[in-house]
Amino acid sequence: MSTPNGYKVIGTRPVRHDGVDKVTGRAIYGADVQMAGLLHGRILRSPIPHGRIRNIDASKALALPGVEAVVTATDFPDAGDRIADLGEGAVNLKHLSSNCLARGKVHYKGQAVAAVAAVSPHIAEEALKLIRVDYEPLPHVTDVRAAMKDDAPLLHDDLVTDSLGKPTGKHSNVSKHFQFKLGDVDKGFAQAAVVIEREFHTATVHQGYVEPHNATAMWNADGSVTIWCSTQGAFTVRAQVAELLKMPLSRIKVVPMEIGGGFGGKIRVYLEPVAAALSRKSGRPVKVTMNRAEVFEGTGPTPGSYIKVKMGADRQGKLVAAQAYLAYEAGAFPGSPVGPGAMCIFACYDIPNVLIDGYDVVVNKPATSAYRAPGATNAAFASETIVDEICEQLKIDPLDFRIKNGAREGTRRADGPVFPRVGMIETTEAAKNHPHYQSPLKGPNRGRGVASGFWFNCGLKSSATASVNADGTVSLVEGSTDIGGSRTSIAMQLAEALGIRAEDVRPVVGDTDAVGYCDVTGGSRVTFATGWAAYEAAQDIKRQMIARAAFLWKVQPEDVVYEDGTLRCAKDASKKMTFKELADKLHATGGTIVGRASVDPPGVGGGFATHVVDVEVDPDTGKVTVLRYTAVQDVGKAIHPSYVEGQMQGGTVQGIGWALNEEYVYNDRGEMTNASFLDYRMPTSLDLPMIDTVLVEVANPGHPFGVRGVGEVPIVPPPAALANAIYRAIGVRMQELPMSPGRVVKALSSKA
Amino acid sequence: MSTPNGYKVIGTRPVRHDGVDKVTGRAIYGADVQMAGLLHGRILRSPIPHGRIRNIDASKALALPGVEAVVTATDFPDAGDRIADLGEGAVNLKHLSSNCLARGKVHYKGQAVAAVAAVSPHIAEEALKLIRVDYEPLPHVTDVRAAMKDDAPLLHDDLVTDSLGKPTGKHSNVSKHFQFKLGDVDKGFAQAAVVIEREFHTATVHQGYVEPHNATAMWNADGSVTIWCSTQGAFTVRAQVAELLKMPLSRIKVVPMEIGGGFGGKIRVYLEPVAAALSRKSGRPVKVTMNRAEVFEGTGPTPGSYIKVKMGADRQGKLVAAQAYLAYEAGAFPGSPVGPGAMCIFACYDIPNVLIDGYDVVVNKPATSAYRAPGATNAAFASETIVDEICEQLKIDPLDFRIKNGAREGTRRADGPVFPRVGMIETTEAAKNHPHYQSPLKGPNRGRGVASGFWFNCGLKSSATASVNADGTVSLVEGSTDIGGSRTSIAMQLAEALGIRAEDVRPVVGDTDAVGYCDVTGGSRVTFATGWAAYEAAQDIKRQMIARAAFLWKVQPEDVVYEDGTLRCAKDASKKMTFKELADKLHATGGTIVGRASVDPPGVGGGFATHVVDVEVDPDTGKVTVLRYTAVQDVGKAIHPSYVEGQMQGGTVQGIGWALNEEYVYNDRGEMTNASFLDYRMPTSLDLPMIDTVLVEVANPGHPFGVRGVGEVPIVPPPAALANAIYRAIGVRMQELPMSPGRVVKALSSKA
Repeated sequence: MSTPNGYKVIGTRPVRHDGVDKVTGRAIYGADVQMAGLLHGRILRSPIPHGRIRNIDASKALALPGVEAVVTATDFPDAGDRIADLGEGAVNLKHLSSNCLARGKVHYKGQAVAAVAAVSPHIAEEALKLIRVDYEPLPHVTDVRAAMKDDAPLLHDDLVTDSLGKPTGKHSNVSKHFQFKLGDVDKGFAQAAVVIEREFHTATVHQGYVEPHNATAMWNADGSVTIWCSTQGAFTVRAQVAELLKMPLSRIKVVPMEIGGGFGGKIRVYLEPVAAALSRKSGRPVKVTMNRAEVFEGTGPTPGSYIKVKMGADRQGKLVAAQAYLAYEAGAFPGSPVGPGAMCIFACYDIPNVLIDGYDVVVNKPATSAYRAPGATNAAFASETIVDEICEQLKIDPLDFRIKNGAREGTRRADGPVFPRVGMIETTEAAKNHPHYQSPLKGPNRGRGVASGFWFNCGLKSSATASVNADGTVSLVEGSTDIGGSRTSIAMQLAEALGIRAEDVRPVVGDTDAVGYCDVTGGSRVTFATGWAAYEAAQDIKRQMIARAAFLWKVQPEDVVYEDGTLRCAKDASKKMTFKELADKLHATGGTIVGRASVDPPGVGGGFATHVVDVEVDPDTGKVTVLRYTAVQDVGKAIHPSYVEGQMQGGTVQGIGWALNEEYVYNDRGEMTNASFLDYRMPTSLDLPMIDTVLVEVANPGHPFGVRGVGEVPIVPPPAALANAIYRAIGVRMQELPMSPGRVVKALSSKA
Repeated sequence: MSTPNGYKVIGTRPVRHDGVDKVTGRAIYGADVQMAGLLHGRILRSPIPHGRIRNIDASKALALPGVEAVVTATDFPDAGDRIADLGEGAVNLKHLSSNCLARGKVHYKGQAVAAVAAVSPHIAEEALKLIRVDYEPLPHVTDVRAAMKDDAPLLHDDLVTDSLGKPTGKHSNVSKHFQFKLGDVDKGFAQAAVVIEREFHTATVHQGYVEPHNATAMWNADGSVTIWCSTQGAFTVRAQVAELLKMPLSRIKVVPMEIGGGFGGKIRVYLEPVAAALSRKSGRPVKVTMNRAEVFEGTGPTPGSYIKVKMGADRQGKLVAAQAYLAYEAGAFPGSPVGPGAMCIFACYDIPNVLIDGYDVVVNKPATSAYRAPGATNAAFASETIVDEICEQLKIDPLDFRIKNGAREGTRRADGPVFPRVGMIETTEAAKNHPHYQSPLKGPNRGRGVASGFWFNCGLKSSATASVNADGTVSLVEGSTDIGGSRTSIAMQLAEALGIRAEDVRPVVGDTDAVGYCDVTGGSRVTFATGWAAYEAAQDIKRQMIARAAFLWKVQPEDVVYEDGTLRCAKDASKKMTFKELADKLHATGGTIVGRASVDPPGVGGGFATHVVDVEVDPDTGKVTVLRYTAVQDVGKAIHPSYVEGQMQGGTVQGIGWALNEEYVYNDRGEMTNASFLDYRMPTSLDLPMIDTVLVEVANPGHPFGVRGVGEVPIVPPPAALANAIYRAIGVRMQELPMSPGRVVKALSSKA
C-alpha cells in the first residue's frame, strides 16, 4: 500500500509513539520529577505594576524552620546590557535576568522578586509572606497608545527615542520603530477606486497551555547543574541559563520532560535559573512550579496592539496600495512580535505599493513572548476585515478577490523576500469549491465570513542520531520537544527514507548531553527541519548498510541498490536482503550501524490558510455561536495528516478564543483581574463545532518530502473570519478583540 | 605539555567526569530511582538446596492489604530449552528463566521462587511469609568432586554424560567436558628432569560489590517496558528480558543507572524480568532490591574448583610438558568459567606439550557467574605454585624461570591461538628489577612469593555518538556502564583524537534507546573497544570539521590539515582556526557537527601480570599478614594511569581476599552459613598494605592508541603469589583456598 506520491509511510496515520503513555498517565512531565532530598521552591511576586525596590529583607523567612534558601536578583551575576540570540531571537540579557528575578525595579504586577526553597511547598508558601520588600511605587501604564504619549510614565531609562521611535536621546517607551516599503503608496492610493482605512485594537491574550511552568534543578559540587523542565527548547534553556548564571554551556545539562502545551510561551526561561540558584545555595535539588495565576501574571502572553490599516483597490478589484501602522505592547521589556506581524499583515497578497510602520512599545504588563504565529493574528484581524470591506464595496466574492490578488510564486513581500512556490491560490480555490462555501446559509442573525492568513516556516538547526537494532527496528534520538506528535512525524521521515514501518522506529527526545544542538520546537519548524535531520540520518544509515551488504556479498558498494527497505545487488539477482534481514546480521559482521545528521536547512516553506466560518449572533446578549467552521490550508506534504489536522483544529480554536472571549482585563491599579481559567474565558469543546479541515498539498520544493510549516498559520485567520461573519450576520464591523458579548451588544446599540 | 609517545591527553590524569557527583552522593544509583505510585517488590527464596515444587499458594499473600501482585515462574512464558548468546556468552534460556523464578524445581538454597509487589517494602516482606510453597525435598550435593560421583544426587534430567563428561545417555552432573591438546605430553614428561604433580581446591567466592542488585520496571499500557537498574550491560538486560518475557527488543528500554561495583556479577538478569512481570501484573511501577544475604545466596559467585596439575621441566629449566585436570562447580546450572580457566592455566608459558581437560559440573549452589578474569585465578593458583616448586627444585630464581619460559610473540597457547606482541617478558623483567624484588626480606616467618597471570582482552561491540557544542566542548554519548572511570578513559581518547582537553568532553552513558548497541562492561574491553568507538567518532567529527573549514575558507577539503586541535590550510598559512574557534562558527555555517561510530574491533591485546608479595605468618594463629605487595602489569598504553593503577590495586586486593579469607561456608543441609559481610570476610583497608603498581607499557599494536585490557588480570596472581610466599615463610605448600588461619595452622601441624 502506498500513499499518493508513492510514499509508503508518509501520508499514513500511525498511532503516535508516545500516545499510549500519554493517555494512560505514564508520561513523565516536569512536575513529576522526584528525587531524594528534593526541596520545593515558590516565587514572591510584585504586588504593584511599577516601582523601585528599595530593599528586600528575607531574614524572617530564612528563620522559618524548613526554609533552606532564599534568592533574589543579587544571587544572579550582573547579566550585562547585552543582546544575544540564545535560540528565541535577540534578547537583552539584563531584561531576561530581571524577568526571572527583578533587579532594582519591578515593571509589572506578578514579576518575580524573590524565591524560597523549603522542605515542603507549604512552608515555602508561608515563607514568602515573611519576606519584606520595600517598594517605591511609580505611576504605571498598561495601554500601548497611552504608553506612547509624551507624558506617559516611563518604564526604562535607556529607551531613548521619541514617541515615533526616532532615536532622539529623549526617553520614551518606544523601543523600536521600523518601516517596510515597497513601491509608492501615495501613487498606489491615487489609482484606487476604493480605499478603506480603519483602526483596530486587540487584547493581551495568553497561550493558555494546560501545564504550568516548572523547573527542577540539581546543582552539583563540581559546579555543574542538571535542570529538568517542560520546555520547547532544552538547548535554549541551556544557553539562557549559561548566560544568566555566567557559566559554561557544558556545565549545564537540560533534560526536557514531556510538555503540556507551549505555543511559544515555553521557550524563554522563568523558573530554570531560579531553581538553579536555589539549588546552588541550598545544596539540594529544588523543584519550582507555578500556579495558574502565576502563569497568567508572570509569564509572557501575546501583546495587545493598536493597528491602523489603509488599503486600496482599483475598479477591477486589484489591490493597488496598502499601508499599516502597527503598535504592539511589548510588555515590561522590549520585544513584541510587531516585526513578524508587520511582515505578515499583507503577505497573502500581491500589492505593488506598500508602506508599513511598526512600533514596539513597553507597558507595565508581563513581558510578552511568542504565541503561535506571533503578531500575525493581530495583523490579519486588521487587514482581512478591510479586504472584506473592499470586496463588499466592489461587490466581489471575497474568495475570488483573494484568488485574483493572492500571493504566488514570484510575489515580493513588502519586507523584501520573493515567494517561492506557495499555495495561497490553491488554498483559496479549495475553500471556494468546498461544500461549506457552496452551501447556502439561512436564518436571521447568521452570517458567513472568510479570511486568509500567512505564516512562516523557520528552518533553524536540528540534529539526530539513529541506531539500528538487531530486530530491524531503529532507535532515533532527536532534540525537539514533542508537543503535537512530532516524535512520530520525524520518525515517519526516517522510516520512509529507510523503507521500514513507522512503528519500527523508536523515537526519543534527547537531553542536551544526548543529542546534537537542536533549536526550539517553534516556528513551525520541527517536522520540517528535525524531520530533515532524520532523513539525513537515514541516508547515513543507508550508506553504511550498502557498504555492509557489499562486504557480505563480496561486491562493490556501487553495485548495491537500496530500494523500498530492500538491498539487492544490481549485478546478481540472487543477492537480496531486507533491511530487517541485514539488521540481524550486523552484530556478526562488524557491529551495529549508527547514523547521524545535523542540519540547518534552507528551503523553508511558509504556509497559507483560508478559513470559512458561519456564525449566529444573539442580538440580545451579543453571544456569537460558531455554527460551522472550515479551515483550508496549504500544508506542503502532510507527513501525518491526523497531526496536521490537529494543528489546524487547535490553532483555529485558539483563534476563536482570541476572537470571541480571551483577554487580560486590567483594573486601574494595573492589576489583571481575571487571572484564572474561570475568569479568563477560553473556548471549551462545548463552545465549538467540529472544525473541518482541508489539507491542500502544495509540496515545498525545498524539502526532501515537501514539508511546510503547518502549526502556526491556522491561528491567523479566525478573528478576521469571525469579524467578517459577524458583519454579515448583524451588520456591524467589529474592530476590537475580543468580540465578546458585551462589545457586540455595544456595537449593535451604537449602530442602532 | 605532552606525555611519552607525544600524546597530550592520553597518559595524563584528569579528574574523572563523574567524580565529584560520586563523592558528594549526587550520583543516582539504581536504588535511588523514585517515581509516583512506585510499588516495592520482594523475593521469596527457596529454604532448601534441592527439591521439587509441588505447589505455590499465594492467596493469603494476595489478601494482605497493600499487596498488589504476586508472580511466580508461571508468569513467565516458557523460555524453551534454547541456548542463546545475549551478551554474556551462551546461556540456556530455560536455566536463565528458572534462575529468576524457579520453574518446577529449586536447585539451591536462596533460589527465587516467587515475588511480591506491595505499597511498602515492609508489607511485601510480610506477604512473603504468607506464600505457601509445598516442596518435595531432594538430596543435594555442594562439592564438585562429590557431584561427579556415580551415586551423586542428580540436579538435571537432561545432562546425559558419564562422570567423565562423555555423552553416554546416562544422567550425570557433568554438563561439559573438553580437552585442549598441544604436542604430546607423554613425550614431554619423558624429557623432564623435574615433574611436579599436585591437587588443588578453591572455594566459592563472591564478587562482593558494595551495591546490592536492584531493578525498577514500569510496564506501559502499550506493552512496552522501561527498566532502570544497576547493570554492567543495558543491552544485555534488554536482550535477556526480551527472551525471558518473549517480547520484541524494541519494546524494552533499559536505563543503566550508576553502579556500585559489578566485577562480572551484574551482567546476567535476576530482578529485571521479575520487576517487569510485577509491573505488568500490578499496572504500577515496581522497584525490587536485594539485601546482602540475597546477594550472597541468590546471585552468581565464582566457582569452587578441583584442579590437578602436573608440570615438567628439563635440567636447563625449560618447561617441557604440562597437564591439567580442571573440574569447576557451575552451581545450579551449567556454565562455569572452566573454559577460560583452562585457556589461561598455562598461558604465561611457552610449553611445547600440553594436555588440559576441563569439566563443568552442576552442584546445589547458586549458579555461578562471571567474576573478574573468570576461572583464571583458580587455575593460576594451581599452575603458579607448581612452577614455584619446580624453580625450588631446580634452584632457579622464579622470575628468571619466567623470563626463560615466558610467552612471547609467536607462542602458541594450548587452546590454539598464537600470541601477537605481548608483554609477559617485559613484565617479569620489570618485576625482577623492581626495588621490592631486589631488597632483602628479613625476619622469622617471613617469605616472599611471586606469581604471574594472563587474561584476555575482549573486543566486542561498542557505539558512540558525539556532538560539538558552540563553546568548543563535545558531548559524548556512549553505551558502556562506567564502573571504574571509563567515562573518562573513553572521553580522553576522543579528546586526544580531536586535540582538545579531556575536560572539554562531557561523556554520558546512554540508555538502550539513546545509543547504538554496546556490549557489556566486562572482559577488560571498555577502554579498548568503546574507546575505539570514541576515536572513530572523533574521526567522523574531524572529517566534517575539515569540510566546514574548507567551506568557510573556500578551499578544497584536501587542503585542510587538522593537527593538534587546530585546522589550517596547507596552501595559505593565514587560514588557521582552533577547534574551539570553528565550533563557535558552526551554528552560523550549517549547524553543529555530530560524529558517530560503531565498532567491533579486532586487535585485542591480552595482558600479563607478575606480582611480588612479602608476608609474615603467625605460626600460632595461622594469620598471614601482607607486608608488601607489588603488582607489575603489561597495560598496553595506559590511557589514564590512575585508573589503571586503581584496577591493579582493586584486582590485587580481591585476589588477596580469595587467597586468605573469602569462601562460602556450607553446612550439611546445603545452607551457606556466612551470608553477611560480617561472616564472609573480605579484606578491608586495615588488612592491607599500599599495593604498589608498576605499569609496563607494551603498546597493543592492534589498537589506535595501543590499549590492552587491564581490569581483570590483576586478580589472577595473588593467591599463587601468597601461597608461594607462605611457603617461603613457614615451609608449607598450601593447596587449598582460602589459606585462612585455620588451614594454615592445620597445614603447619601436619608438617610438624
